Amino acid sequence: MKTSTLTDNILAKRSFLCVGLDVDLTKVPKHLLDEQDPIFAFNKAVIDATNDLVVAYKPNTAFYEAHGVKGWESLQRTMRYLHLHHPDIYTIADAKRGDIGNTSSMYAKAFFEDLGFDSVTVAPYMGKDSVEPFLAFKDKHTILLALTSNKGAFDFQTKTLDGKELYKQVLETSKTWENSENLMYVVGATKAEFLADIREIIPESFLLVPGVGAQGGNLQEVCKYGMNASVGLLINSSRGIIYASQGEDFADAAATKATELQSQMEIELKRF
Amino acid sequence: MKTSTLTDNILAKRSFLCVGLDVDLTKVPKHLLDEQDPIFAFNKAVIDATNDLVVAYKPNTAFYEAHGVKGWESLQRTMRYLHLHHPDIYTIADAKRGDIGNTSSMYAKAFFEDLGFDSVTVAPYMGKDSVEPFLAFKDKHTILLALTSNKGAFDFQTKTLDGKELYKQVLETSKTWENSENLMYVVGATKAEFLADIREIIPESFLLVPGVGAQGGNLQEVCKYGMNASVGLLINSSRGIIYASQGEDFADAAATKATELQSQMEIELKRF
Repeated sequence: MKTSTLTDNILAKRSFLCVGLDVDLTKVPKHLLDEQDPIFAFNKAVIDATNDLVVAYKPNTAFYEAHGVKGWESLQRTMRYLHLHHPDIYTIADAKRGDIGNTSSMYAKAFFEDLGFDSVTVAPYMGKDSVEPFLAFKDKHTILLALTSNKGAFDFQTKTLDGKELYKQVLETSKTWENSENLMYVVGATKAEFLADIREIIPESFLLVPGVGAQGGNLQEVCKYGMNASVGLLINSSRGIIYASQGEDFADAAATKATELQSQMEIELKRF
Repeated sequence: MKTSTLTDNILAKRSFLCVGLDVDLTKVPKHLLDEQDPIFAFNKAVIDATNDLVVAYKPNTAFYEAHGVKGWESLQRTMRYLHLHHPDIYTIADAKRGDIGNTSSMYAKAFFEDLGFDSVTVAPYMGKDSVEPFLAFKDKHTILLALTSNKGAFDFQTKTLDGKELYKQVLETSKTWENSENLMYVVGATKAEFLADIREIIPESFLLVPGVGAQGGNLQEVCKYGMNASVGLLINSSRGIIYASQGEDFADAAATKATELQSQMEIELKRF
């Protein structure tokens, strides 16, 4: 999907909400466990209940890989369902991959071609030649980890590297890579105070912002410092939405939580 | 597998060779493409021909994920074959994962429990709480990316972070994490001159060393600076061994190449 199409979708739906499809079978309603593919059944119900309120879905690959072949089938089935019924919704493989060049090409093939995702999250530690194979795909985005939402972000990302914090070095260096117009960045909502500085380095890029909700980030703060002329934000909530209820009403509860966030987003989108 | 068992195996086999099972279907002999599972057929032939010469196998997950569900089945089948026929051989999931805590736990479950690997490679960018969930598994190793074999390693890893190179900060900081005795580290053979410094920081840990062969690293240099009292090295070769021939003799050719490396290793192991 082109970046401009994503912005158009955001403005049409009055939402920049992304829902994380991180299905943990110990947390899904018990009646789903009788289904042939409980993970897909859960995702389908969440998608059916929330697709009007969101512009993106983000399955985290860990939750599928934990179930081996069956989990990978559930991921494939989820992607097929989205492509068939909601081709306008942006999809993010939250995979945090990155490897030497020829290997990164294989990951790009896995997520962009085999599964048909619009984007994939990538870790920057191995540098330019580990990221450029992803960037080579036209109309696909590579979402680079910059400043993550967890505590461990302070172990290395915020340390000063040659006079500048590592995450800022990642932002600046990545701008020089080939096809860098295909980059987006992960910036945790729990680090909203860093967003003004980040926008000085990458004013135009989209940011994928996890950490609103369960992890404690604040939506208004993120918008104040992170929004740009193309909106430029995808705010993700996973557990706060998909586990709003663990009973049979889980899909309705997810829709209620998603509506709450979408309503707040509609206010933030007034100037567009 | 316990670290001491790995050393025992190395001394018994006079080898610290690890073979990377990075199967690219465009490079395997054509006759294998008629098999029901060409990737597994290729791996089985390589394993049958080389298992006496190696102490470890390292499938890189990218090459399996590129084929979706079928690829994951090939990986599972390969692991089952190893567990059944060569339970003494150490296995490494070269996955380069790392995510927020609860998600890293799912990855650990995927590789240590579902697939039964002895170890998994992990990227350090997200810090302590992204790595400790892997370290919590007893008799399993977490192999942290420190200094990788690719050019991109110079983009961030060797830059100075608060007065010390990032990769050294990763080594030092990771030593303070819970269950850090379960850590090993990736250090590229193409950066052998860095090994003396690295051994000052982590004298006892095992190092997984890619980059000998196709990428140009030198075995003797790596041993000179990297070997410790428990050997402490696993040297990986992937393409140099598994694609030594792309004809029907590929398994014999792989064994020949593996024998060459094992013979060099036997010389380096004389003092043990």
